[in-house]
Amino acid sequence: MKQALSVSNKEIVSLVENGGVLSPKGYKAGAVHAGLRYNRLDIGVLISETPASCAAVYTTSHFQAAPLKVTQESIANEGKIQAVIVNSACANACTGEQGLKDAYKMRTLTSEKFNVSEDYIAVASTGVIGEYLPMDKIESGINSLEPGKGGENAEDFQKAILTTDTVMKSSCYQAEIGGKSVHVGGAAKGSGMIHPNMATMLGFLTTDAAISPEHLSAALKEVTDITFNQITVDGDTSTNDMVIVMANGQAGNKPLTPDHSDWPVFVKLLKENCESLAKQIARDGEGATKLIEVAVKGAVSNDEARTIAKQIVGSNLVKTAVYGADANWGRIIGAVGQANASVNPETVDIELGPIVMLKGSNPVAFSEEEAKAYLEKDTIHIMVDLNMGDGSGTAWGCDLSYDYVKINASYRT
Amino acid sequence: MKQALSVSNKEIVSLVENGGVLSPKGYKAGAVHAGLRYNRLDIGVLISETPASCAAVYTTSHFQAAPLKVTQESIANEGKIQAVIVNSACANACTGEQGLKDAYKMRTLTSEKFNVSEDYIAVASTGVIGEYLPMDKIESGINSLEPGKGGENAEDFQKAILTTDTVMKSSCYQAEIGGKSVHVGGAAKGSGMIHPNMATMLGFLTTDAAISPEHLSAALKEVTDITFNQITVDGDTSTNDMVIVMANGQAGNKPLTPDHSDWPVFVKLLKENCESLAKQIARDGEGATKLIEVAVKGAVSNDEARTIAKQIVGSNLVKTAVYGADANWGRIIGAVGQANASVNPETVDIELGPIVMLKGSNPVAFSEEEAKAYLEKDTIHIMVDLNMGDGSGTAWGCDLSYDYVKINASYRT
Repeated sequence: MKQALSVSNKEIVSLVENGGVLSPKGYKAGAVHAGLRYNRLDIGVLISETPASCAAVYTTSHFQAAPLKVTQESIANEGKIQAVIVNSACANACTGEQGLKDAYKMRTLTSEKFNVSEDYIAVASTGVIGEYLPMDKIESGINSLEPGKGGENAEDFQKAILTTDTVMKSSCYQAEIGGKSVHVGGAAKGSGMIHPNMATMLGFLTTDAAISPEHLSAALKEVTDITFNQITVDGDTSTNDMVIVMANGQAGNKPLTPDHSDWPVFVKLLKENCESLAKQIARDGEGATKLIEVAVKGAVSNDEARTIAKQIVGSNLVKTAVYGADANWGRIIGAVGQANASVNPETVDIELGPIVMLKGSNPVAFSEEEAKAYLEKDTIHIMVDLNMGDGSGTAWGCDLSYDYVKINASYRT
Repeated sequence: MKQALSVSNKEIVSLVENGGVLSPKGYKAGAVHAGLRYNRLDIGVLISETPASCAAVYTTSHFQAAPLKVTQESIANEGKIQAVIVNSACANACTGEQGLKDAYKMRTLTSEKFNVSEDYIAVASTGVIGEYLPMDKIESGINSLEPGKGGENAEDFQKAILTTDTVMKSSCYQAEIGGKSVHVGGAAKGSGMIHPNMATMLGFLTTDAAISPEHLSAALKEVTDITFNQITVDGDTSTNDMVIVMANGQAGNKPLTPDHSDWPVFVKLLKENCESLAKQIARDGEGATKLIEVAVKGAVSNDEARTIAKQIVGSNLVKTAVYGADANWGRIIGAVGQANASVNPETVDIELGPIVMLKGSNPVAFSEEEAKAYLEKDTIHIMVDLNMGDGSGTAWGCDLSYDYVKINASYRT
């Protein structure tokens, strides 16, 4: 079954059922249990058959972890990547010179194992900050990787990148571009410390599209701002976050540029995939029982609409109210009120799913029973209309539960 | 016992043991149970014997509640206030025209009851957003107020302004100014939705100092920025927050101006009182088991140091780690890393109480047992030195516990 989506009313982007990071042509993946974690897969590799155009976005934290520095150095060389090596359990962040040395060593080991130039290798780590990588385990782990093309290989990779995640995140979308079938697939991890601007999340995207690194970067930036940068679990931003996309051109399309008639199709393809992964991350937020989607319209700009949507979905008070199925729209107003954006305090409408709660900033009588029943669902839609302009934007997050506190009160133990 | 504090090495500001809002000369207070809450005091009044110079700071929310509009109108007239009327249980926020009418009515009723000009009356409300005040109860409540000068009157007022608070907040400090004994006393409420820039908090300050409204405003602004605006419980800002100070001049000092030799003494007096109330609010944060004090130094400016301190103390991940007594300094780094301030990622020191955790951005080995024992205390000090400049600042907050979620998952029920 393909779920059709539309660009300019043409249904041309479709979901690939059970698709993932290996659905595009010319990629393989694998993972091993190297002993960084008690009994789960903890080192993964993702490889393109040929060097691929590459683009990446990174955390805005002042403290970029060592692997991000190494990855940036690799990409800076030619804008191409052929392999991504990633470990969980240890973030290799705030580990000084030793940490940087260890990240380079991960790159060298991967280069030797797979006979890929060091400049074509990206390195990623996720886990606890401030601990050194156990390099003996990393070395034997990398040396025992045996990547393949099957669904189980994709699944192993998707499992190896998880930390407090409870489920794997993957997706793939397909579209016809220049008469060729082009795929964008991806895998991601992220559960806590998730916030706009690349919180503790990693995203690995693959595509068989032909596209230059420069244009791929432009598309990734545009899409990231409205997908991964619009999710929040707890407002904290981490040191290791990265989304990386490889485009190996094996679909055989004429190289994509912004002038290409199908450029909007490719951007939409990339966006659908990133939005799917972003929502999977938000829904699997630490302790989450519900996905919250906040849509803001009538703002003076799309930027401001996105800012307000993030403020609402990031509010602890909104999150706890949703957890408790309490239709306390005053907390939505509280969040809108403190947003760094233009707001007319007399013209705000708020809807919770199908239920109107506030109209022109005045309370509307509603059935508490109906609202409570709505809030028991597993996806909650909050709509805010500022009635000021044409700006709109969406953000995704989750509720705040006892389990969030439990998970985070003793993460390291 | 008086606890001495110093200005320029002179010990001149002292704590008044068990002091509060009625410790300065010439004030009385009272409260009643008007039926807004089930069985607790819910309307309070604070009155100066004579019209007092007044200054106030308000929430920065786009949605200022009706009572704040009325209070600003009163103060704008002459800069003087003689009585403050306040109710809990209902915030009278997002209540449109009716809400504004109700706030004016509260002012009129108070004017008639106490024979004080309407322009000398401030109105404050706190509680649930989006519900109308039950004006019949408000009216009979105000009419049954019988303020007095005793400790029990101060206590009644302090109780009437509480919502989810578990304890009253009050304090008083004293200093010699121009040969006269001057007091600054205060009461405050606030427990959830506490964040920089006047979250769901109310502060009522009294002083017998002689000072013009203009200079009082300058002093209040200066002090608020480093006290009330430096606390956070959950990062949410409310619609009703206000700190108001009345100065009735009954101490008999020569009116204070910034040129007065004792001006720094008065500012320090005001600051000590506001800091005491701010810390009482942070310690009583919803579900809190510990007060967290974060001191940042070595920043490029005091402003940036305060920004970073707030970012740390507001991080859910730091708060849950403190709750769980987990010395996970990586989360402190996470918070510093995302602060909108200058940070050199190579030069950061972090100390948890007496324990050095990070030096020059490199991990320092420490005893987990010692760290855990420290984190079991009821006040936790976190120190961050950026080693860049001379800027310093402090912020206060609390840990994030199961009870925070419990309290907020069903606030209205």
